[in-house]
Amino acid sequence: MDATPKTPRTTVARQRDRGRYDRDTINAIIDESLICHVGFTVRDQPYVIPTTHARVDDRLYIHGSVGSRMLKNMRQGVPVCVTMTLLDGLVLARSAFHHSMNYRSAMLLGVAEEVTGEDEKRLAFDALVNHVVAGRSADVRAADAQELKATSVLRLVIDEASAKVRRGPPIDADEDYALTCWAGVLPLQLLPGAPIDDPRLMLGTPVPTNVSTYRRQRAQSDID
Amino acid sequence: MDATPKTPRTTVARQRDRGRYDRDTINAIIDESLICHVGFTVRDQPYVIPTTHARVDDRLYIHGSVGSRMLKNMRQGVPVCVTMTLLDGLVLARSAFHHSMNYRSAMLLGVAEEVTGEDEKRLAFDALVNHVVAGRSADVRAADAQELKATSVLRLVIDEASAKVRRGPPIDADEDYALTCWAGVLPLQLLPGAPIDDPRLMLGTPVPTNVSTYRRQRAQSDID
Repeated sequence: MDATPKTPRTTVARQRDRGRYDRDTINAIIDESLICHVGFTVRDQPYVIPTTHARVDDRLYIHGSVGSRMLKNMRQGVPVCVTMTLLDGLVLARSAFHHSMNYRSAMLLGVAEEVTGEDEKRLAFDALVNHVVAGRSADVRAADAQELKATSVLRLVIDEASAKVRRGPPIDADEDYALTCWAGVLPLQLLPGAPIDDPRLMLGTPVPTNVSTYRRQRAQSDID
Repeated sequence: MDATPKTPRTTVARQRDRGRYDRDTINAIIDESLICHVGFTVRDQPYVIPTTHARVDDRLYIHGSVGSRMLKNMRQGVPVCVTMTLLDGLVLARSAFHHSMNYRSAMLLGVAEEVTGEDEKRLAFDALVNHVVAGRSADVRAADAQELKATSVLRLVIDEASAKVRRGPPIDADEDYALTCWAGVLPLQLLPGAPIDDPRLMLGTPVPTNVSTYRRQRAQSDID
């Protein structure tokens, strides 16, 4: 399987059995995550900002206003770290110490570059909308020239990356299995409620099926 | 209302109407979030690591193995940024450009300090377990001396902090309200599934009510 190279910076040091380096695992986490947390440093102070993203092949796109601090800083070619985390469950052990969470996280390191070509910018825009709701870009008005100009799009080539996955029941200390308290996993999932019509929606506009039947795609084998 | 001081580093620069600085809003986001993303810098490379946390008054605690890279680095008194993000909904506009998300995020800046006193360490341990499931620490075996020794606990005083909140329907460009596509909000919530007994659970152990009726506390006024 296609794998990202393990580097000292991405090699999972603690609980090494949780580290994953194959591209399929990393991509699945990127694609299921609705948001990422972007880290960058300005005068020794790290900042961690949540934002939306989209992946096209081995490229991660993020975007924002031309005036945003995050994008202004990142455009200068500084090293960034982009992390996505999916929370799959609470792992409730018999001892405080062995409590944990089931999760899948991906961490990408690199230097982001600004997308300047209009074709790639449009492709990224579509990908960003379709990442949130599959097929949505075909239903809505595309960005016009002014909107494209007002938006910075950054590209991070997914090269130095790793994932970390925990799944399964708690692992208690041997002697604690005799304790009488309940132990197990409480699964968690980000789930949609009923769609809320925009107050100014034209009467009788139906909710499209990609919204009414919304689910994030998940690889079941990675959750069990 | 008690407020954190606005500093140039925490003042929300874009979409200023989304910025919040009152302690109640910030605390509610910290307390509802099951995980945070911790940013720190090592040799100019930022890292963003997901971890669990707990708040006691104006102190945020995070913990991890004494050997973890994150804690080894943070113990050296480097500046950190801790960000929590709650995703409340997809904001589906009539144009690609005006798509957004409803969310509540908190960002804390500062320098974390290692907790060395055993009493505070135990208090943090209890808070970390009870942050995940209210009252859980009373049901499970507390950390013993060896487990406490194997765990680093860091304290970040919540001083320089801000929150950002978006809620409500999409805001489209005036001329786009004539478009016929559906627009609105798809609410999202992290919800529990049915608890899964540990495979080695003693037969007949009931699921406690703090697990069987699990919900994260949310301030409804901040979501609508």
